[in-house]
Amino acid sequence: MELLLLSNSTLPGEEFFAWPIPYVTGFVQDRPRIAFVPFAAPEEQRDGYVEKVRPAFEGMGASIFSLHQEKDPVKALDNADVVAVGGGNSFLLLRDLYRTGLVRAIADKVRKGLPYIGWSAGANVACPTIMTTNDMPIVETPSMRALHLIPFQINPHFTEDTIPGHGGEGREQRLAEFLALNPTMPVLGLREGSLLHVQDDRISLHGRDLKLFRHGKDPLVVQKDQEFRRELSDL
Amino acid sequence: MELLLLSNSTLPGEEFFAWPIPYVTGFVQDRPRIAFVPFAAPEEQRDGYVEKVRPAFEGMGASIFSLHQEKDPVKALDNADVVAVGGGNSFLLLRDLYRTGLVRAIADKVRKGLPYIGWSAGANVACPTIMTTNDMPIVETPSMRALHLIPFQINPHFTEDTIPGHGGEGREQRLAEFLALNPTMPVLGLREGSLLHVQDDRISLHGRDLKLFRHGKDPLVVQKDQEFRRELSDL
Repeated sequence: MELLLLSNSTLPGEEFFAWPIPYVTGFVQDRPRIAFVPFAAPEEQRDGYVEKVRPAFEGMGASIFSLHQEKDPVKALDNADVVAVGGGNSFLLLRDLYRTGLVRAIADKVRKGLPYIGWSAGANVACPTIMTTNDMPIVETPSMRALHLIPFQINPHFTEDTIPGHGGEGREQRLAEFLALNPTMPVLGLREGSLLHVQDDRISLHGRDLKLFRHGKDPLVVQKDQEFRRELSDL
Repeated sequence: MELLLLSNSTLPGEEFFAWPIPYVTGFVQDRPRIAFVPFAAPEEQRDGYVEKVRPAFEGMGASIFSLHQEKDPVKALDNADVVAVGGGNSFLLLRDLYRTGLVRAIADKVRKGLPYIGWSAGANVACPTIMTTNDMPIVETPSMRALHLIPFQINPHFTEDTIPGHGGEGREQRLAEFLALNPTMPVLGLREGSLLHVQDDRISLHGRDLKLFRHGKDPLVVQKDQEFRRELSDL
């Protein structure tokens, strides 16, 4: 099983999908057919989303086809060397993964070896649930259970910063509340400009350090370029 | 029907529940028995939450009892002159409103005249759904449908500001996505330090201006101390 889980697609002030290029280039090498999942965008924006993503992947020598334009998206997955799940709204993404039956099809295929790339919402749905998303719940989902490709939660776009002069909860307070309600589930706070590369039992962190949150323990900083087990037993 | 829907309890740097005092004092006058709903806090924090809220209401001449400490919370509601729903996490609040049967009991009683105060998550659950919350979905709810005491959504803690140097979506982008998926539902962006006072068909806005979002229209600024109809037909 191989996954590339990115916190985000684009850093402020940079071109779309600029920072991930060095990492994704290696990942898609000799895997030229990318099945793209644009469900995190509202329906009327999905065609445009594909055309935004296409040149980024073509620049890395890969070609993409979008599952939202396929009559049978589950069957179309057979033609893919990689499945790539884009960012946007995690609830919308998960709702349409359920609607199309892709929630099971993608999980099955990735467990059997289909490489998976996901950024932002696409990294969220690789987790057991989408309960550590930052997104607004703009649609109902049948459940918050997601692909469960990894045994921990990711909080993408992680930051300790808050809006100046604003009283709403910061990210660390929200995650502490998640842990209070879900005390056995660890959360990795994945900063913008960083990613996890999962290869079977091993995970490596690239780009920036991350913060690991566990119930009843102090947050732990994991340095970039560090390797650890997917069970987090060595952290 | 009478509701007081507050964006937030406390402004940065102020004492807990300081800014609402002038408004809430009038609302609880001659209504001294307040049934408090602390479900937006994690279970082990609820006793503490009541003790934090108690002096604020006692200072306004009212006394509170907490529905989480009642054997039969639905029945206990009969002893209340006002129901007050506190802030915290909207998903947790709504889950436990369903679990206790209070979701229906509160909606019924408020429609029949029981005055309602809610702040932050407590204002969110007065809406048709909790789909415009800013909170993290830390628990599953049976549905996102809420008390539906008003025919529009509120986004509490509304701000145009974002975290400096951070690529995550701003509030207006999130609300635009909500509207794209829910095009018939208006959203009021209620700023910190402001509230809506609903009296049957009339609503007045106090504290600060707000921003009204409707699908396919430019946002509309509503000035503070303005009155409008709950159907928003005069805006």
